Amino acid sequence: MPNWLLPENIADVLPSEARKVEELRRAIIDNFHLYGYELVMPPMLEYLDSLLAGAGHDVELRTFKLVDQLSGRTLGIRADMTTQVARIDAHLLNRSSITRLCYSGSVLHTRPSGLHATREPLQIGAEIYGHAGLEADAEIQELALASLALAGVKHVRMDLCHVGILCAILENDADARKDEAMLYACLRAKDVPELQKITAKYAEDTRRALLALPGLYGDASVLVRAREVLPKLPGIARALNELESLSKLAGGANVITIDLADLGGYQYESGVMFAIYVDGLPNAVARGGRYDHVGEAFGRARPATGFSMDLRELARLLPAAAPKRAIRAPWGRDAKLHATIASLRQSGEVVIHSLSGDENDQDEFECDRALVFENGNWIIKNLG
Amino acid sequence: MPNWLLPENIADVLPSEARKVEELRRAIIDNFHLYGYELVMPPMLEYLDSLLAGAGHDVELRTFKLVDQLSGRTLGIRADMTTQVARIDAHLLNRSSITRLCYSGSVLHTRPSGLHATREPLQIGAEIYGHAGLEADAEIQELALASLALAGVKHVRMDLCHVGILCAILENDADARKDEAMLYACLRAKDVPELQKITAKYAEDTRRALLALPGLYGDASVLVRAREVLPKLPGIARALNELESLSKLAGGANVITIDLADLGGYQYESGVMFAIYVDGLPNAVARGGRYDHVGEAFGRARPATGFSMDLRELARLLPAAAPKRAIRAPWGRDAKLHATIASLRQSGEVVIHSLSGDENDQDEFECDRALVFENGNWIIKNLG
Repeated sequence: MPNWLLPENIADVLPSEARKVEELRRAIIDNFHLYGYELVMPPMLEYLDSLLAGAGHDVELRTFKLVDQLSGRTLGIRADMTTQVARIDAHLLNRSSITRLCYSGSVLHTRPSGLHATREPLQIGAEIYGHAGLEADAEIQELALASLALAGVKHVRMDLCHVGILCAILENDADARKDEAMLYACLRAKDVPELQKITAKYAEDTRRALLALPGLYGDASVLVRAREVLPKLPGIARALNELESLSKLAGGANVITIDLADLGGYQYESGVMFAIYVDGLPNAVARGGRYDHVGEAFGRARPATGFSMDLRELARLLPAAAPKRAIRAPWGRDAKLHATIASLRQSGEVVIHSLSGDENDQDEFECDRALVFENGNWIIKNLG
Repeated sequence: MPNWLLPENIADVLPSEARKVEELRRAIIDNFHLYGYELVMPPMLEYLDSLLAGAGHDVELRTFKLVDQLSGRTLGIRADMTTQVARIDAHLLNRSSITRLCYSGSVLHTRPSGLHATREPLQIGAEIYGHAGLEADAEIQELALASLALAGVKHVRMDLCHVGILCAILENDADARKDEAMLYACLRAKDVPELQKITAKYAEDTRRALLALPGLYGDASVLVRAREVLPKLPGIARALNELESLSKLAGGANVITIDLADLGGYQYESGVMFAIYVDGLPNAVARGGRYDHVGEAFGRARPATGFSMDLRELARLLPAAAPKRAIRAPWGRDAKLHATIASLRQSGEVVIHSLSGDENDQDEFECDRALVFENGNWIIKNLG
């Protein structure tokens, strides 16, 4: 095997693509800043215990494990940054007031989440800590939509879901609780035949409720139907009320759908969840929701809600940028030449030293001018 | 052990520090752009063979290894990005002309390079492929100095070295060649007693040359001394000539010193090497040099020269930024409020929703104004 091949579902980002990723990254972080979100940079690796605190089995399977030569303990390469940011909120900042944090960085997955999914998403996201009200969820959803708008996405569909519904059903039925992980997986995949098999031995009420979830999908009228068919549990009533309030808040130009089985995420979610879809891409481009229990795992319970996206996937939605016009300049020790080049660069012009050979097959730059010496001065001449 | 402790020599970057890192990163990448360098983003992990192609034993020891669940092969987490960028030049871009590439990203080390060194440097750097002349080395050195100037560093000391000198000595003596790795380590540490022990059994010429290297340190006059005391080998003469030319090119306001034992690097270097030091920091803040043989390891020999720095360490040299002034705004569904907030953000103002509780203990923002509703309009009022 040639030694320049990359592992499956791992890729380089080449110049024209990298420029789009970099520009989108800056635009989104700048927008986070305008909303009052502070940037943090958690490390690529941590002790496995702390990395997986509050997260589900799924994240554990996706996390690369290593042995630390210094401590002998097991390290994990982050598969998700949310628990890391929750740890920073809980322990390093340790503020009593609301804290808004944002981040951007690579995460690694042992296995791709789908056939063509990357194993190295470039995660970017934002989180609010310390506010339990739906206003925080609404702000996070607004920010997710604003971030997508920066990637040129104007028309989206936002699915709302609420993990409290499944939690209430499971709380009520010890048999079903044992199959929690399997039920999550079946609902996420909307695998009704498998769901029928698993629920066959459950109490009739639980079975009926679980089998109803994949069908509870559509516009706001789904909430009316859900109130009729789902068990009258306080947890379910609360969840449906929250979904109703949020679907009104999020409205505007976007299509809001309710999908009570869209439980894709990291299994640390504790309340309202959302997933944003765009035309032409089968997977959600952004996912978010509430995860109040992760702070608890770090010894300090704090309400928390946030979202994240994969910058590389998002950047693909942007059109390729035209190559930037550049000036070719000779190489030499002439002080006047140096000063001319420095002042051109200061004014934002790209100036490329001509070292030898033709250089016109770059992706990002197109030399359409050259710096030439005429009558004692360095002047710019147009090329062919 | 509490689960929020991080591994040794691994740290979070908190808001005020993260902002400095982010701003410096942008300034340096923008400057690379003005010099005609195209951004690439190689992956965090690769097959170990390809990651270590052309690199020395030292890099291998510093590289975290993993098993790929998909292929069963050994993966490595990058400990350095240079060989990755060389692979991109050799195989993905595959241009015949000169290619200038730059990059920025985290790398991980199994062991810190010193007591207080991080195991997760945030590497940023630039490389020129396809030009064997010293002009390319001079351009890389100019770019390294310009990058440091963006971090506020004005007075630096640049050490020049040339791996060709040691290579010529080793080529001439099979005994010494066997100890190559040990000799590198001793010279790097300027460990003369150990060097005397190792060289005791060598031919007298080789021994005298190796023992002379740690003392060949100082201004340009070192080159005159080196010509006298080092063996008259063609490789050594060539190396000393290159150092003389480069020290003249790099001059200007900076202090240039020659240090023929400063061989710190990744052991893939093949020619001129340099290290830049600033007051107050014991380790080099930037290192670079020629590494023509790495392309060969990918089946395509290309002259190559470049440099890299650790952004986090560099950002520490910048003064802390003052908190940014921000406007506090109430939360609500009022269309006029939304429009006012949107237009304030468009004009660059940070507007933070007031959700509940006091929010004045942020690092990055200081709310000195508030949006209030008076006489049917939303207006900005100064706070206390």
